[in-house]
Amino acid sequence: MASRSFQEFIAGTCWGCSPRNPDGLQIQSFWEGEEAVCTWQPKTIFVAGGNFLSGGILATVLDCHATCTAIAAAYRAEGRSMDSQPTLAFVSGSLHVDYLQPTPVDRPLLFRARVTEPGEKKIRVACEVFSGEQMTAKGEVLAVQIPAHLFG
Amino acid sequence: MASRSFQEFIAGTCWGCSPRNPDGLQIQSFWEGEEAVCTWQPKTIFVAGGNFLSGGILATVLDCHATCTAIAAAYRAEGRSMDSQPTLAFVSGSLHVDYLQPTPVDRPLLFRARVTEPGEKKIRVACEVFSGEQMTAKGEVLAVQIPAHLFG
Repeated sequence: MASRSFQEFIAGTCWGCSPRNPDGLQIQSFWEGEEAVCTWQPKTIFVAGGNFLSGGILATVLDCHATCTAIAAAYRAEGRSMDSQPTLAFVSGSLHVDYLQPTPVDRPLLFRARVTEPGEKKIRVACEVFSGEQMTAKGEVLAVQIPAHLFG
Repeated sequence: MASRSFQEFIAGTCWGCSPRNPDGLQIQSFWEGEEAVCTWQPKTIFVAGGNFLSGGILATVLDCHATCTAIAAAYRAEGRSMDSQPTLAFVSGSLHVDYLQPTPVDRPLLFRARVTEPGEKKIRVACEVFSGEQMTAKGEVLAVQIPAHLFG
């Protein structure tokens, strides 16, 4: 596992994933072979009802983890590190989540993502969400390249 | 426009939409004819980068607004008010969002939802998102009925 998360190299102040947004979730994503993993412990304020996580917050983490995975994959495809130039920027063009069962809010979640369609301008990333051994949701993001200055 | 929002009648403490979650977004949805509308002003902490809203937060509001619209529609289909018994509870079974263009974070958004496939156990809801006159995103939720006690 790399010592620095994808997000440390990515510009912007995203509520879901930037280490520069003090009010945000500050998720961290790392390569683990061909997959990118993110372990995240929800705060209990992010409940939907009962003991279950808000579906929107789960979607937010999946969206950020998958989009950051696309960015990391774009650098990897060019054989260079994420702090090299030119900067590559992607945002989510579409997001899909299937909620397979309620996701507990009070224990860590594991998000496992992998590129399913590589590309220069568009990269599709699939992501599975686990609470313990149980897959509680799965989804995908189509990440699309944008000019790097837009989100700087 | 009704004087009480859908969310005032819905159990749970959802971060996205419950008036009983002091840390949450507390969105409010109302019927406007056959459509359900929600006007929401993002806080600027919910930025993605530049002046643009986090896609995950947009997805969260769309998910809550559409699912609450499904619940309100289920009561309406039975010709009864949302505070009548038995309680009808739905959660999102799937969520899809297409991000058409960046959504400004510093002005109000309008979410317009309508039922596209009614049903007793599953209700499909489409939703469009406007910043001023511009549609910046659209999506849909498949809401599925659950036992009411689960999210109480």
